[in-house]
Amino acid sequence: MAGNSFGQIFKITTFGESHGKALGAVIDGCPSGIALEAGDFVEAMERRRPGKSSFETPRSEEDRVEILSGVFEDVTTGTPLTLLIGNRDVKSKPYGVLKDLFRPGHADYTYFRKFGHFDYRGGGRSSARETAARVACGVVARKMLAPLGISILGHTLEVGGIRARKMDPSVIHQNPLYCADMEAVKGMLSALDAAGKEGDSLGGVAEVLVRGCPAGLGEPVFDKLDAELAKAVMSVGAVKGVEVGAGFDAARLKGSENNDPITSKGFSSNNSGGILGGISNGDDLVLRAAIKPIPSIMKPQKTIDRKGRDAVLELTGRFDVTAVSRIVPVLEAMVAIVLADHYLRASAIEQDFGA
Amino acid sequence: MAGNSFGQIFKITTFGESHGKALGAVIDGCPSGIALEAGDFVEAMERRRPGKSSFETPRSEEDRVEILSGVFEDVTTGTPLTLLIGNRDVKSKPYGVLKDLFRPGHADYTYFRKFGHFDYRGGGRSSARETAARVACGVVARKMLAPLGISILGHTLEVGGIRARKMDPSVIHQNPLYCADMEAVKGMLSALDAAGKEGDSLGGVAEVLVRGCPAGLGEPVFDKLDAELAKAVMSVGAVKGVEVGAGFDAARLKGSENNDPITSKGFSSNNSGGILGGISNGDDLVLRAAIKPIPSIMKPQKTIDRKGRDAVLELTGRFDVTAVSRIVPVLEAMVAIVLADHYLRASAIEQDFGA
Amino acid sequence: MAGNSFGQIFKITTFGESHGKALGAVIDGCPSGIALEAGDFVEAMERRRPGKSSFETPRSEEDRVEILSGVFEDVTTGTPLTLLIGNRDVKSKPYGVLKDLFRPGHADYTYFRKFGHFDYRGGGRSSARETAARVACGVVARKMLAPLGISILGHTLEVGGIRARKMDPSVIHQNPLYCADMEAVKGMLSALDAAGKEGDSLGGVAEVLVRGCPAGLGEPVFDKLDAELAKAVMSVGAVKGVEVGAGFDAARLKGSENNDPITSKGFSSNNSGGILGGISNGDDLVLRAAIKPIPSIMKPQKTIDRKGRDAVLELTGRFDVTAVSRIVPVLEAMVAIVLADHYLRASAIEQDFGA
Amino acid sequence: MAGNSFGQIFKITTFGESHGKALGAVIDGCPSGIALEAGDFVEAMERRRPGKSSFETPRSEEDRVEILSGVFEDVTTGTPLTLLIGNRDVKSKPYGVLKDLFRPGHADYTYFRKFGHFDYRGGGRSSARETAARVACGVVARKMLAPLGISILGHTLEVGGIRARKMDPSVIHQNPLYCADMEAVKGMLSALDAAGKEGDSLGGVAEVLVRGCPAGLGEPVFDKLDAELAKAVMSVGAVKGVEVGAGFDAARLKGSENNDPITSKGFSSNNSGGILGGISNGDDLVLRAAIKPIPSIMKPQKTIDRKGRDAVLELTGRFDVTAVSRIVPVLEAMVAIVLADHYLRASAIEQDFGA
Repeated sequence: MAGNSFGQIFKITTFGESHGKALGAVIDGCPSGIALEAGDFVEAMERRRPGKSSFETPRSEEDRVEILSGVFEDVTTGTPLTLLIGNRDVKSKPYGVLKDLFRPGHADYTYFRKFGHFDYRGGGRSSARETAARVACGVVARKMLAPLGISILGHTLEVGGIRARKMDPSVIHQNPLYCADMEAVKGMLSALDAAGKEGDSLGGVAEVLVRGCPAGLGEPVFDKLDAELAKAVMSVGAVKGVEVGAGFDAARLKGSENNDPITSKGFSSNNSGGILGGISNGDDLVLRAAIKPIPSIMKPQKTIDRKGRDAVLELTGRFDVTAVSRIVPVLEAMVAIVLADHYLRASAIEQDFGA
Repeated sequence: MAGNSFGQIFKITTFGESHGKALGAVIDGCPSGIALEAGDFVEAMERRRPGKSSFETPRSEEDRVEILSGVFEDVTTGTPLTLLIGNRDVKSKPYGVLKDLFRPGHADYTYFRKFGHFDYRGGGRSSARETAARVACGVVARKMLAPLGISILGHTLEVGGIRARKMDPSVIHQNPLYCADMEAVKGMLSALDAAGKEGDSLGGVAEVLVRGCPAGLGEPVFDKLDAELAKAVMSVGAVKGVEVGAGFDAARLKGSENNDPITSKGFSSNNSGGILGGISNGDDLVLRAAIKPIPSIMKPQKTIDRKGRDAVLELTGRFDVTAVSRIVPVLEAMVAIVLADHYLRASAIEQDFGA
Repeated sequence: MAGNSFGQIFKITTFGESHGKALGAVIDGCPSGIALEAGDFVEAMERRRPGKSSFETPRSEEDRVEILSGVFEDVTTGTPLTLLIGNRDVKSKPYGVLKDLFRPGHADYTYFRKFGHFDYRGGGRSSARETAARVACGVVARKMLAPLGISILGHTLEVGGIRARKMDPSVIHQNPLYCADMEAVKGMLSALDAAGKEGDSLGGVAEVLVRGCPAGLGEPVFDKLDAELAKAVMSVGAVKGVEVGAGFDAARLKGSENNDPITSKGFSSNNSGGILGGISNGDDLVLRAAIKPIPSIMKPQKTIDRKGRDAVLELTGRFDVTAVSRIVPVLEAMVAIVLADHYLRASAIEQDFGA
Repeated sequence: MAGNSFGQIFKITTFGESHGKALGAVIDGCPSGIALEAGDFVEAMERRRPGKSSFETPRSEEDRVEILSGVFEDVTTGTPLTLLIGNRDVKSKPYGVLKDLFRPGHADYTYFRKFGHFDYRGGGRSSARETAARVACGVVARKMLAPLGISILGHTLEVGGIRARKMDPSVIHQNPLYCADMEAVKGMLSALDAAGKEGDSLGGVAEVLVRGCPAGLGEPVFDKLDAELAKAVMSVGAVKGVEVGAGFDAARLKGSENNDPITSKGFSSNNSGGILGGISNGDDLVLRAAIKPIPSIMKPQKTIDRKGRDAVLELTGRFDVTAVSRIVPVLEAMVAIVLADHYLRASAIEQDFGA
């Protein structure tokens, strides 16, 4: 109801603010018997962590995940799994103008209108730091999905208008942009460098692919698999658009071009993105997210203060130039959570009670 | 859980198959005191109804909505509102090859994989006819939103690659495509005519605008207003993509271009589509949906039968050439349902319990 | 949220008022493949139906259940199952004083305070007639549970202070009180006759037994099986108390008396009522409900009108003298619904994802 | 779904095991603006804490509640409130026979059957220690209810068959049993002393009274206020029965005796326990819980081991002799949580959308 939970059976509830004591999540509905230890979280948390590249701020959180409950004798017990991530790099620096001025493109203004206050310490609950808890939950979801043969791979498709032309999975984790085309990476890094020097920022497009997804996941009508994925992806802060399979291009195709022929060896094409009528068809899932440029920029911007008076905001400090690469592991996590949940949902109902 | 409900407080549950006795919906959580009678549904149901134009099939359902419960002395009572729509035009015609062959692009194959059967009578629950119940629920949501000054307007932005260049609200309901640009309508109708003659179909893009949406709707983190709208829109059968505000274009803008400046007179631009941090900012809401071409076409298509053997499907009869215009009122309904629900959700929590 | 749904996976939503067009239910989450036809409902609906005995009003509804959706080729499809029960015996008789006076012991006053109105036509949504929809849903739940070997048996334990001393299942359905002790039935019927002649009414106690319940149903902490059963039973209009196993008697036992010894052949006693730590232990489930006397009586009663002015209510017509026997099939239905739901819930989570 | 959450709007999710690192709760849906600090929890946590009396074990946890998130500048923010309680008194003592033998009356056996394992370190998630998190959540709920004039008072009505004859609120918190009759306390303490010396345990009955509850809380049909309270109360470990108002005594009254007459000055009696048709009527709420004797006793008991072989369990150490007094603050907390949730639920829907 208040928006901090996601999922029906594999249900996560996240909590915490960017500058509070800690953030984390409770997963209620994680099956018992899954081997899990703190070390399992390191790789994914590291990929989401800021401060690793020239286009990112150097805040060096370690983002260690502590398992507070739900694991006994090294396996999950079926009781709530609590994951805690401390906030180590919280300085009590002066917030200055940020206490009064709403940052354009951020949630300061809308939180103030909704709750009567806003957390001027980096956005509080609305900060991108919240996604650390999502990534931690995604690790658990992926450990559940792995023995089923389901794997999830995200990559950066486009930054600042420069689009990848190749899809080479082997290079994705070898460049800071998580892009599958090393040629495109060069162009993207130049564009980031130029934008950063101007005190500006860039957006882009990320893609997530799912291999090994069984047919039958997703529920009819409202909880279609693509509808749930769209919600999951759009709930990530900077995302402004989502598409599945051919997506917006499908709007310009004819039926005879867009329909994926079915053969005894499988589907001959995958414009559907692996989903028909909201239910997975056994092919790979394909979805993309449009990510807006980071709203924190160094250029002066028009805004208002808490009393509605016109003002000019001039941010100081350093900011990330793009969020695309850091969002890639978040999208992977959200897709994993949706699939874990729908796998359990499908199992619940698809039983044979016939004579 | 099984996917046929939507909303948390203003909660709709729809039921019924395309060729069963009836379809309909129960709304649990509709506030009491809203004037409602059967006549309120006529206009919206008529706009969704097929068979009104040359590019639509002539199935002439009347789609009368009967109120079975929840209204006493002409106003809603706060108890479940049940809306029933009979299936009048269900012929027990022979289904022929459709009993065995999965139609490409439809849900036949995935329902068969999920449930062990599929409803070869027009798709059953997966049929677009299911959206009639959504439109009926949307009428109730709009009656609740109207006294709050919230209005919702959908229109067709693009069909077969031809895009509207003007936005003249006065003409939207004066052409069968619900397009706001009469010049574009001509091109769209020619394209539909040509595709229909080839036995093919076209997709397009629809847009929904919300005027008068108050600031503060939407919940943090997962139940962001744009995330819920994305789910609502993507849950409509043929939709393959959703975007809010600048959408995919935002991915190519710089932060200085994409941020909407805030002034004492409001926002100077609306790239956000009226939503910041998942919460409405008081500006107009803007969202768009990519709609794939209708999968039922007259050209022969490769498919398989229930036993997995290769086959060729040749459909006979008549089919709609595009779904875009008929989806417009469905999208309006879904947006209305999301807003009614979030208005009640916001009211529930935003109370003052301070000393 | 608005209270008309029950269950998480096997989820029922009921609708309708006592004097509206119809009442019914949608079951979303019923597994596919269960054989179901209208005839399956006859026996249970008949047992709940009023007008069969001297101590009941002669309103002779037939209570035929119509299946509107969710069944195709005689089996459930996994899509929403809609059950409709018409209101046949609704006379537009004058309501007289009932339009203004709140009946003591009924919900007239509280509905008026909550919703700003009350349905003076027999209580509307708060009428006991609402339980017809529950009984219909219970039939479906029992059809799902039957192949699992789970059976549910309710009976009347006490009426007007006269308690059954025997438990002979063979006679339960051979007397109008559904009591397992024919000697007690005689006393109960005399007591009912005497109370009826005074224009008064009687309460009692009903018990429900479940045979064949597997170990492992129920979830930890809040959704304990006994907690869910308590809610299900207390949600039936006239119920004022619920107990499981030894119940209130357990409060007077010592630990050494109350603990059920565990042996290699099973539990040696069943004070727990088949539930330990909120989870079924494989023994029979045992629960009891305290049912208050029917509030509609022929004696003059003090009350107030809509404006809060003192008044005296004198009811005319005929009323049931006790609700106990008619509540027995309703309790059976609620227990069946809880078990069907928890069986599916347990199946969803208890899977092996270990290496 | 997995049972560790309670409530619809004011929604709590608890986590943690008796011998894990910590336990706690996340409250999602707590309104913003409520003043809250760690000191607010001390009194209630202290009342629930064991080790204060001769009939309780001397485990001296301090049970300090730490606020991890959801409070900024000393008031709640409307974002998830996380409460953490460390487990300080966890010794890594040898568990001996408890690793293999199921304790009668406990959840060891049923958890083993459900999850394939059980936590032999004091029951893990099924331990009564779990209720510490409920009490912490109850503190927040009571801070929300206080400005509305709603107050909640629990007391011990009966222990070992000895029943309080007086209701003197001033003495409740002046005796270790939280009983309102000092005469009865003497008898109860003697009975506890005698049972303790035998190595046995006692049960009892607790009552909760709510003053200042407004009319209109509770939802029709399934989420009746008494149904939700019954679930809340029955979900507390040792509770085997629940009754509202006259409860089981109502089953033996006539309608003319049980109906509460309504007058212009209010109800003349309160057999209903303040609830009619599932909705609060403005009178005091009254409910009682039957609490079984603590299953951990010093007498030898028949049981089985993990392989199903007969065995005899002989517990060593010290155990509480009764749970009744320690459950009183837990019941108060659960009632507070139900009321906070239903207050918000009622607010959400009861709005005027009329012209």
